[in-house]
Amino acid sequence: MPLPQAPSFELLLFGGNGDLAMRKLLPALYSRDCAGDLPPRGRILGLGRQPLTRDEYVAMAEQGCREFVPHGNFDEKTFRQFAARLGYLRLDARQPADFGALRALMEDSPAEVRVFYLATAPDLFSIICRHLSEAGLATPGARVVLEKPLGRDLASAQKINAEVGSVFDEGRIFRIDHYLGKEPVQNLMALRFGNAFFEPLWTREWVKDVQITIAETMGVEGRGEFYDKAGALRDMVQSHLLQLLCAVALEPPASIDPDAVRDEKLKVLRALKPITHENVLATTVRGQYRAGAAQGQPVNGYLEEEGIGQSSQTETFVALKVEIGTWRWAGVPFFLRTGKRLQEKLAEIVVNFRSVPHALFPVSRGALTGNRLVIRLQPEEDLKLFLLAKAPGEGQTLRPAHLDLDFAEQFQERPMAAYERLLMDVLRGKLTLFMRRDEVDAAWRWTEPILRGWETSGEQPKQYTAGSWGPAASSALLAREGAAWHEES
Amino acid sequence: MPLPQAPSFELLLFGGNGDLAMRKLLPALYSRDCAGDLPPRGRILGLGRQPLTRDEYVAMAEQGCREFVPHGNFDEKTFRQFAARLGYLRLDARQPADFGALRALMEDSPAEVRVFYLATAPDLFSIICRHLSEAGLATPGARVVLEKPLGRDLASAQKINAEVGSVFDEGRIFRIDHYLGKEPVQNLMALRFGNAFFEPLWTREWVKDVQITIAETMGVEGRGEFYDKAGALRDMVQSHLLQLLCAVALEPPASIDPDAVRDEKLKVLRALKPITHENVLATTVRGQYRAGAAQGQPVNGYLEEEGIGQSSQTETFVALKVEIGTWRWAGVPFFLRTGKRLQEKLAEIVVNFRSVPHALFPVSRGALTGNRLVIRLQPEEDLKLFLLAKAPGEGQTLRPAHLDLDFAEQFQERPMAAYERLLMDVLRGKLTLFMRRDEVDAAWRWTEPILRGWETSGEQPKQYTAGSWGPAASSALLAREGAAWHEES
Repeated sequence: MPLPQAPSFELLLFGGNGDLAMRKLLPALYSRDCAGDLPPRGRILGLGRQPLTRDEYVAMAEQGCREFVPHGNFDEKTFRQFAARLGYLRLDARQPADFGALRALMEDSPAEVRVFYLATAPDLFSIICRHLSEAGLATPGARVVLEKPLGRDLASAQKINAEVGSVFDEGRIFRIDHYLGKEPVQNLMALRFGNAFFEPLWTREWVKDVQITIAETMGVEGRGEFYDKAGALRDMVQSHLLQLLCAVALEPPASIDPDAVRDEKLKVLRALKPITHENVLATTVRGQYRAGAAQGQPVNGYLEEEGIGQSSQTETFVALKVEIGTWRWAGVPFFLRTGKRLQEKLAEIVVNFRSVPHALFPVSRGALTGNRLVIRLQPEEDLKLFLLAKAPGEGQTLRPAHLDLDFAEQFQERPMAAYERLLMDVLRGKLTLFMRRDEVDAAWRWTEPILRGWETSGEQPKQYTAGSWGPAASSALLAREGAAWHEES
Repeated sequence: MPLPQAPSFELLLFGGNGDLAMRKLLPALYSRDCAGDLPPRGRILGLGRQPLTRDEYVAMAEQGCREFVPHGNFDEKTFRQFAARLGYLRLDARQPADFGALRALMEDSPAEVRVFYLATAPDLFSIICRHLSEAGLATPGARVVLEKPLGRDLASAQKINAEVGSVFDEGRIFRIDHYLGKEPVQNLMALRFGNAFFEPLWTREWVKDVQITIAETMGVEGRGEFYDKAGALRDMVQSHLLQLLCAVALEPPASIDPDAVRDEKLKVLRALKPITHENVLATTVRGQYRAGAAQGQPVNGYLEEEGIGQSSQTETFVALKVEIGTWRWAGVPFFLRTGKRLQEKLAEIVVNFRSVPHALFPVSRGALTGNRLVIRLQPEEDLKLFLLAKAPGEGQTLRPAHLDLDFAEQFQERPMAAYERLLMDVLRGKLTLFMRRDEVDAAWRWTEPILRGWETSGEQPKQYTAGSWGPAASSALLAREGAAWHEES
């Protein structure tokens, strides 16, 4: 079932010459253009403080696409066609007058869809929206795309959402969490609700624990100043990890309409058991990397990185034990973990099933006795179901084996980069994969007491060596529940 | 966990120069010898009516091993070592005096285990046992192995079992069904009872239907006279297909002890809903092949084969809809199918799961909406779980995908041929994979009314072209239940 072509559009890209635009957004748009998904009348206007000619901007975009379009799919000729869509306008978001120039440029635009993409720091979101409104640019059908982080706590997030919301209706606001655009996350819902095979097992009766890991090998390269004010909990848990948790834990929605799905996610977020100063030490582990190695090269500790205060207490690692107070999940620990300068770049969801209630067969030493579903989001995308099978030959001993689903192998199509999918959803007006205001609210409501708990208890981050899997306390957190982080041998 | 070495043995092989001995038994023993599984003191004595010298017998055995040892594992030197175990004695099973000579040969044998393997026609089973008893050879610890068919109906099976049972205790009788020795059948139990993943789904609530197929491309080559008296129901359904059905359907036993497992299989056999003249036409399809093609070559119809009566009504194909009257399986059809001169050589068990109760996603045209587990026994051994996944790219359409477990790939060990495993089990005295007398009884008790039903109703076999999948009525049998035979695309 091919989708109908997207409507004609104009995409106004704030932060148009920034990192995100060059590394992700323009390469994603170029890729969709090559695939024939962009309508003939669709233009992209980069907006930034730097004075650039159109040719200079196109040259920057070309360099970005060359470098970041996946699988060497860059091609001179198709880029020329794509470049015809590109324009650039010097604009300082803090200068109302600059928005007048923008309006002049957009006058008589015949585009069916107008999209403001705010690939800027979040403290500009409100200002830009106000200026758009004042300049008469926030027309009724216009959409706005917000990049995370949406604030640094509940109050600041609410403020941003209120200010953006005073200009744009909620149904026009696309809050991006690019993890939701990844194919395996999409597929998690498809697998759960498109197959009879998983859902009967997807309850406290059969699930022993769930583990969600987003591990980076990078440090804070260039983002030190920003990162030191945020830390891993704000930067990753409040957004990506909670969104992945929702995708695992949500009840079957009545449909895949945006609000049906987001209602179910919201229910999960609201059912998260609070972590406060009373239980924060028992359920969380904070870490900060010290000097070590990455890819075989010695690297600095966090405190030696550029832009980091000498005595910074910011966590670069966090592990949590989270519980969901619902009939389905009561008593099942969800272990979340994320960090910088870890051993591998890796994002995965692991569902550990309980052992059989009555063991008939001997099991080979060291083998898991429960089944395990591993959904890899990064670096490769695949799905593995670990189980026990009889080893060939005499005897009845069970040994580990796995069932594999390799997306690249079984489907002809190249998987879409997350931003490709999300940008197309914005153009088509599909909100399912974007966070609703009440979701952001609920996520912060749950996250903030953890931050406060750490403060109250004076909890210092535990040191871990760059290139390790974080502080030893992270393993101990699971060991106390009779669990262990999944590690592929 | 390596098993302890098998005890010293003497294996007396009736039908020692016959087809089964040469193609299966001696190659299996040779393979186990190469693997170091046979104890130093273990000898094999071929017994047959033909006068052969030991050298002639060894030469026959060598030819058999060369041709039938799998994966080109034959080797001159190891065969010399194996050959040292071989002997031959001319023996006519109907001549009591010949058993005296056998006794003389076995006097003072130090072997811990004595095995009589009756690889002969079943009408010799009783005579051989009587003569063994009279000659004083059926010593208390001696074991006897019986090849199928055990009779041609309930009465003849009971007679054989009674006569063999008057000489050997039930615990010393090994009734072989070599399908039970196949790795994937073993693994079916291991998967069901060693993993939490399958058992919760293994009920009427989630299973829509089960299909068991054993398809041959061969005709009745050389076995015409025997086959014409038996037919597919007696030859395959009463034994192999019902045994496979038991392996799918049995309740979790308390242990894998032989009687715990066989008790559960017996319960299944006794719970099969009767097929009698009243419902035989609605639940069975008989077929007989006419001329057609096999592997691209024209082949005769059944009636033109050697040894077949001109107007034979024997079925070379049978398909049945079987129901099991238990809480677990009530209302779930088990479709069994077997035949000669079919399109492929194939043995497989297919479990079809129900569709999801509420469809959220569109499904690509023609795709199954339910999940499917396919366990292949032949020609290759593997396990596939068919499910639906989201196709990469935009949209939410589900498309078929599969999770694979390839035994050859995931385990280093070569899978054991069924006869290797079963022979070792005989030497070790492990009865789990052998049919108990009451199982054979129950299988015949259920099978016989079908034969009588066909007679009473005057049901003629339906013609099908050699090289097809049997009569069209076989598809219609499933279509009436909203099902279709699994065919891999």
